[in-house]
Amino acid sequence: MMYFEDVEVGRRSSFGRYEVTREEVIEFASKYDPQPFHLSDEAAESTYFGRLSASGWHTAAMMMRMLVENLSDIQQAGLGSPGLDELRWLKPVYPGDVLRVESEVIDKTPSRSRPEMGSFRSRATLINQDDVAVMTVLSIGLVRTRPPVS
Amino acid sequence: MMYFEDVEVGRRSSFGRYEVTREEVIEFASKYDPQPFHLSDEAAESTYFGRLSASGWHTAAMMMRMLVENLSDIQQAGLGSPGLDELRWLKPVYPGDVLRVESEVIDKTPSRSRPEMGSFRSRATLINQDDVAVMTVLSIGLVRTRPPVS
Repeated sequence: MMYFEDVEVGRRSSFGRYEVTREEVIEFASKYDPQPFHLSDEAAESTYFGRLSASGWHTAAMMMRMLVENLSDIQQAGLGSPGLDELRWLKPVYPGDVLRVESEVIDKTPSRSRPEMGSFRSRATLINQDDVAVMTVLSIGLVRTRPPVS
Repeated sequence: MMYFEDVEVGRRSSFGRYEVTREEVIEFASKYDPQPFHLSDEAAESTYFGRLSASGWHTAAMMMRMLVENLSDIQQAGLGSPGLDELRWLKPVYPGDVLRVESEVIDKTPSRSRPEMGSFRSRATLINQDDVAVMTVLSIGLVRTRPPVS
């Protein structure tokens, strides 16, 4: 089990593989972001995107899927996340793209009021098959401290 | 059409209605955030959440749906979003909750390099049926300036 004491500032990880499909892009956008350029090539043609591209929220959700798969490998004593900062959509994500994640632990802070936990911040970058960064986010995680040996 | 010049700093809006269902919570989490406490009451019982709750990314996606519906009413000359800051998940979102959005324009900035556009920041808060804020986010929007009269 990985506790707060085990979180290493500066540690980098590289993981995940997500194939973006046209069907999934349209399905997500239909439910949660039905702007025309996320629904068809025709509507996207005259926009910045040029052709059908994924909703930014879909892109974030695909990253989350890879983070969860990676965390379940690590067995972290995680307590969830209060949120995130500096989410930036840098480039469009298109059907056919294959995404992966690179992440780095930026800093960690023990809780002042709750000795049983601490927080850490990670910068995660989503990268496509051409090694282009398409999204970056600074996420905050909460994690248990190591229980005292009794 | 609503252009950059029409964006009013301090303007507040209240809109949307989204009923959270158990089926949708499990469907989203299965695809994008398959942590056990987002998949069943049993797995959530011993956690902070107490019972099945929506993925934070699902919560964000539900907010986006309401924002898009509201924007399509306004006919804004929008150019998409480069990202967001200070997303915070404040309280769990449970099946049966009914969500709405309150938003306020915080500031606006003309582009220094591109006179045909500007950006503005809005603070959006997602509120449940008990008037409890469950999520807040500071989003950045890009919008066209009014075309010169020729």
